[in-house]
Amino acid sequence: MKADARRVSDLGEFALIARLQEELSDQREALAMQPAGSRLLLGIGDDAAVWASTAPARIATTDTLVEGVHFPPGVPWSDLGWKSLAINVSDVAAMGGTPEYALITLALPGEFLVEDVVDFYRGLAEAGRHFGVVVAGGDVVRASQFVVTVALSGRASVTDDGTPLLLRRDGARPGDAIAISGHLGDSAGGLRLLTSSVDCPPEAAERLRRAHLRPDPPVELGRAAVAAGLRCAIDISDGLAQDLGHVCELSGLGATVHADRLPVSDHLRRAFPEETTALAATGGEDYELLLTGSAQTLEDLRRQVDVPLTLIGEMVEPTPHEPRFLDSNGQQIALAEAGWDHFANKRRRR
Amino acid sequence: MKADARRVSDLGEFALIARLQEELSDQREALAMQPAGSRLLLGIGDDAAVWASTAPARIATTDTLVEGVHFPPGVPWSDLGWKSLAINVSDVAAMGGTPEYALITLALPGEFLVEDVVDFYRGLAEAGRHFGVVVAGGDVVRASQFVVTVALSGRASVTDDGTPLLLRRDGARPGDAIAISGHLGDSAGGLRLLTSSVDCPPEAAERLRRAHLRPDPPVELGRAAVAAGLRCAIDISDGLAQDLGHVCELSGLGATVHADRLPVSDHLRRAFPEETTALAATGGEDYELLLTGSAQTLEDLRRQVDVPLTLIGEMVEPTPHEPRFLDSNGQQIALAEAGWDHFANKRRRR
Repeated sequence: MKADARRVSDLGEFALIARLQEELSDQREALAMQPAGSRLLLGIGDDAAVWASTAPARIATTDTLVEGVHFPPGVPWSDLGWKSLAINVSDVAAMGGTPEYALITLALPGEFLVEDVVDFYRGLAEAGRHFGVVVAGGDVVRASQFVVTVALSGRASVTDDGTPLLLRRDGARPGDAIAISGHLGDSAGGLRLLTSSVDCPPEAAERLRRAHLRPDPPVELGRAAVAAGLRCAIDISDGLAQDLGHVCELSGLGATVHADRLPVSDHLRRAFPEETTALAATGGEDYELLLTGSAQTLEDLRRQVDVPLTLIGEMVEPTPHEPRFLDSNGQQIALAEAGWDHFANKRRRR
Repeated sequence: MKADARRVSDLGEFALIARLQEELSDQREALAMQPAGSRLLLGIGDDAAVWASTAPARIATTDTLVEGVHFPPGVPWSDLGWKSLAINVSDVAAMGGTPEYALITLALPGEFLVEDVVDFYRGLAEAGRHFGVVVAGGDVVRASQFVVTVALSGRASVTDDGTPLLLRRDGARPGDAIAISGHLGDSAGGLRLLTSSVDCPPEAAERLRRAHLRPDPPVELGRAAVAAGLRCAIDISDGLAQDLGHVCELSGLGATVHADRLPVSDHLRRAFPEETTALAATGGEDYELLLTGSAQTLEDLRRQVDVPLTLIGEMVEPTPHEPRFLDSNGQQIALAEAGWDHFANKRRRR
């Protein structure tokens, strides 16, 4: 019998925590990636985590994955470990900040396999090394369903005199261009491949599934954006239509999106030729950044960063405060689905 | 039909969050209680919360309550709102720090009543005002079971030159006296009254239930303790025997506890005359502080603070690294139960 084929109820809370700490024993890389002035003083094992920080402004966010709600059965636990951290990193990136320390809360049924929790932590630790995030503490509790909650703390970008520079949802101005990093719709395509049978080339399928399971939010881009003077962003978690809708609502503006300019991958086109635009416009969990600002600033930024950045439309004055999607003839497209509601558990029509 | 008798699935995620924000609309008191240099820049509604802080060292902790695991059915939701924050405040107090900002994650079944969530938030907001904690953000997700996770951020106490002063579990020295704040066992007594029928005076019952549902961790005491030069504490969450066990293990020491000195309330004696000592020694969720240090420093501290502080024993050199409980004749008491294991869901024998 493999040691880790045991159930977490066999191992008990304290032995389980000790086992998970082993997976985190080597956080040297993540610790080395901490910004100047940031230093972990006390990690897992005391009443709370403690770190020294010279940052004058803190960013904090939390996001949760629930089994059967946020992910289908059969997804590798290591991928979920990665994703649980990445979706939080995305929120910090969308503020223009730098992620630093994470607290992990796992709610698990007693019959959960120890090796699955260990796999989860392996993926989490991998993401920690990738994003420079140190796991500083957490909690493990018993529940009827797997729920992971990550609380992520980071630092805001600041001016030389310490004034915080933030990318806010309410920071869009009339006439701002709208830019999107990376590609849209791959994650929604990947989810569909994970939950139903679709005839598509294996390489495309693999890339789309990976987009869904291992999102890689562009932290550098967020920082470069505030440094370039941009002041508005949101991350694409609930789908472009809905997330741009939040920017419209909070900025008191409308938005025009040219559907034919949406950045979509060849993989998505190949796998879902009929639905490429719909998936790009309303599919969730891309964890790309939507930025608004002067077209010139965005063009300059585009040349400066490693990730693709595509101008897709403009913020406009007239009401209603919601995005309009136009086809190549300038005709408005009716989007059948416009984002995710956690309680309705279905796509909402706007 | 009362508006709030609706189910959360009727209301949907965004309307629910808007409704909960109403309960938090007046956080002026909590905001006014923030230490100098701490200021909320961006609360609920953006990708993440942001605050300015001049504190050179941060404390972060997270704790979770799961329905049916951490609380029995029928407990008022407002009390659980209070408790979900208080148990996290207790961890910050046990580091000698000051709690500042909280993120709240609620996992709820769709059929959950809106009025129950609102009640939960009412109690949470009340605790926020009491402890000076600002709710800065969070997440609401669908799940099969009610789970609340609070992530709490605070500042560490520091010297004039910014060196962090911490109360650590590994900070006990041989010969240190052991002190306990408040009373032990009331919370465990209250839990028993909530889950079974016990013949006891109504006033005592009410006080014990309140101890269980509305814990009031001594934040001032933690701060006064580090200021007085103490360096070791733990909060009593899993029961004195188990929590003192953590201090023993991490400090590499044993401990002697004089059972007849355990601070117990008259209410507990009245309700559970036969089990007073057992409840005080092993009952969990007191959220009192255990401090170790020189008897003189602890005596001085006792005169300085508003909460009762009782010397109950000493840290000792010999192994094993676990506490021994002695009766008034100096005979060791065998404790049948020694704390809580979340997966075993039963008391553990040491």
